[in-house]
Amino acid sequence: MAEEGLSQAIITDSVSIFYLTGKMIEPGERFLALYLNTNGAHRLVVNGLFAFPEDIGVTTLWYGDTEDGPALLSQCADRDKPLGIDKDMPARFLLRLMELGAASAYKNASACVDTVRARKDDAEAALMRKASRLNDSAMEAFKPYIKTGVTELELRDILLRIYKELGADGPSFAPLIGFGPNAAIGHHLPDGTALRDGDCVLIDVGCKKDGYCADMTRTYFKGRAPERMRAVYDTVKAAGDAARSLIKPGVRLSDVDGAARTVIENAGYGPYFTHRLGHFIGLDVHEAGDVSAASDIVAAPGMIFSIEPGIYLPGEGGVRIEDLVLVTAAGCEVLNAVPRDLTVL
Amino acid sequence: MAEEGLSQAIITDSVSIFYLTGKMIEPGERFLALYLNTNGAHRLVVNGLFAFPEDIGVTTLWYGDTEDGPALLSQCADRDKPLGIDKDMPARFLLRLMELGAASAYKNASACVDTVRARKDDAEAALMRKASRLNDSAMEAFKPYIKTGVTELELRDILLRIYKELGADGPSFAPLIGFGPNAAIGHHLPDGTALRDGDCVLIDVGCKKDGYCADMTRTYFKGRAPERMRAVYDTVKAAGDAARSLIKPGVRLSDVDGAARTVIENAGYGPYFTHRLGHFIGLDVHEAGDVSAASDIVAAPGMIFSIEPGIYLPGEGGVRIEDLVLVTAAGCEVLNAVPRDLTVL
Repeated sequence: MAEEGLSQAIITDSVSIFYLTGKMIEPGERFLALYLNTNGAHRLVVNGLFAFPEDIGVTTLWYGDTEDGPALLSQCADRDKPLGIDKDMPARFLLRLMELGAASAYKNASACVDTVRARKDDAEAALMRKASRLNDSAMEAFKPYIKTGVTELELRDILLRIYKELGADGPSFAPLIGFGPNAAIGHHLPDGTALRDGDCVLIDVGCKKDGYCADMTRTYFKGRAPERMRAVYDTVKAAGDAARSLIKPGVRLSDVDGAARTVIENAGYGPYFTHRLGHFIGLDVHEAGDVSAASDIVAAPGMIFSIEPGIYLPGEGGVRIEDLVLVTAAGCEVLNAVPRDLTVL
Repeated sequence: MAEEGLSQAIITDSVSIFYLTGKMIEPGERFLALYLNTNGAHRLVVNGLFAFPEDIGVTTLWYGDTEDGPALLSQCADRDKPLGIDKDMPARFLLRLMELGAASAYKNASACVDTVRARKDDAEAALMRKASRLNDSAMEAFKPYIKTGVTELELRDILLRIYKELGADGPSFAPLIGFGPNAAIGHHLPDGTALRDGDCVLIDVGCKKDGYCADMTRTYFKGRAPERMRAVYDTVKAAGDAARSLIKPGVRLSDVDGAARTVIENAGYGPYFTHRLGHFIGLDVHEAGDVSAASDIVAAPGMIFSIEPGIYLPGEGGVRIEDLVLVTAAGCEVLNAVPRDLTVL
């Protein structure tokens, strides 16, 4: 907060509040805010419906369904000073605080928490490894079910069952499974499409374990891999290798993105790599910070993010290979162990 | 918008954008906005990752992962006029629009869409009936599984399976199932607690069907109903009856809340009815608008909301009975058909 020139800030994201207090509260549409002040006068404002008995180390202010939560928070704030605001705070609460004159100015201050959350400590890194190991096991258990005629939705249900059997908390996001041309559609959700010989099979899936998220993509081929798709596959694989080999503390993540993108551009597929190279991950599957040309983040030990180059040929097929990496003192550790070699099932 | 004194507004809620355009886009953390202008120059700003081929009747502006979505939207807006803002728009986008000087002022304008969404047309009312009928069937199919020794989590899994077998899209929210003292804890999530003789069993569950949400609560007793809990049950049931008998066009929803609350207060349980009487529902399980002392909404035909009085005795047990009601020309139609009589299983 001092770096951002702020003496006070509000955190409203449930996961960030859990990260800071150890208490998970999911208030739905109701107001929930952790007010932080550099003088130590922190306050948690919560609807009484989510009452908890334990002392979580911060003074808690309760309000009811007919009361004005933001007004209660406004009374705690220093009106003559700027107030840091959580990036995800719903506009209705921010506009209400402005109306109440809660502060002299309002500034997106999520970086105060996000930069800390981005660097995992040893206990968190161990949990991230555990989640990814479980995701690896699920992917291996899942592969035998990828048979001609199976539908994307059937495979999704099988995967969810496998996660449950392996003891995951659940999926970390709605599984993305796409066959053939569907694999070329960004964020295609599984539908009734049946698997045919010669199709690529894009599987972008993750589970949660003990609160932490895994996320991995593999692309297989059913029966045979058409020549053009083999070339695409090799290019995507090489792009990931180029990115990972560059990662170590001090390297700009925009350069990591650039390394992968250059491989794909040089192979002539530049226009078909349509997204950032990666995103941060931890308690949330998408955390603040990305690996892209627009990122100003410099790699530091403890950071965990995805490296997920892809090439998508509309109407034909798509290949994405995604792994999570942990920045170490000397380079990076890949959290996934499922092979990345071209595989025809 | 005219009623709100606005010539322009932004809608960012995925479900409201679906309601207005027929197109569902779930952008995760990426910027998505439907810009509405009373002069007809509407624009949809979407990340290219969510590209769709069809014409949805509004000019669509695409941006990429390294581009600034809010800046693209800002170029469409009239800088010298106030801009309506979606109540759920993340603060980071609102603060960015303010920084860009997109408009002369910013005002929570969700009411423009929410008041329209609150009144269901005949086709929507039919879908709401269908979802609640499915929820009724699920509750009846579920009852035989409420056996001594079963855990809350086991019952949750059984319910989710029943929804699937009955052809629901899925649950409309994470099922709330609480035994005995757990039923007195607001928003208690199912855990490993096993059902004992004499426990109350609070079941607050809903499914989605064709995009529309059901939501119902029943409280049963296992083996026997302790005398005090019988009195509590009768009071909650009478409170719901009092509320429903009052509903017709022109009645203030704060009076509907008051009718139920008075019954509970007169029975001496006032402090144990700790929440609003109800909430609106439709494409979302909690839509804008509630039935509470603080509500300024007047009942009108087509409105659908829950009536869910409850009494919660800490350490002992809780009773809630919830139904959805549709305001008709002359009164209201109850969308749930599961009996509300005290039932000992």
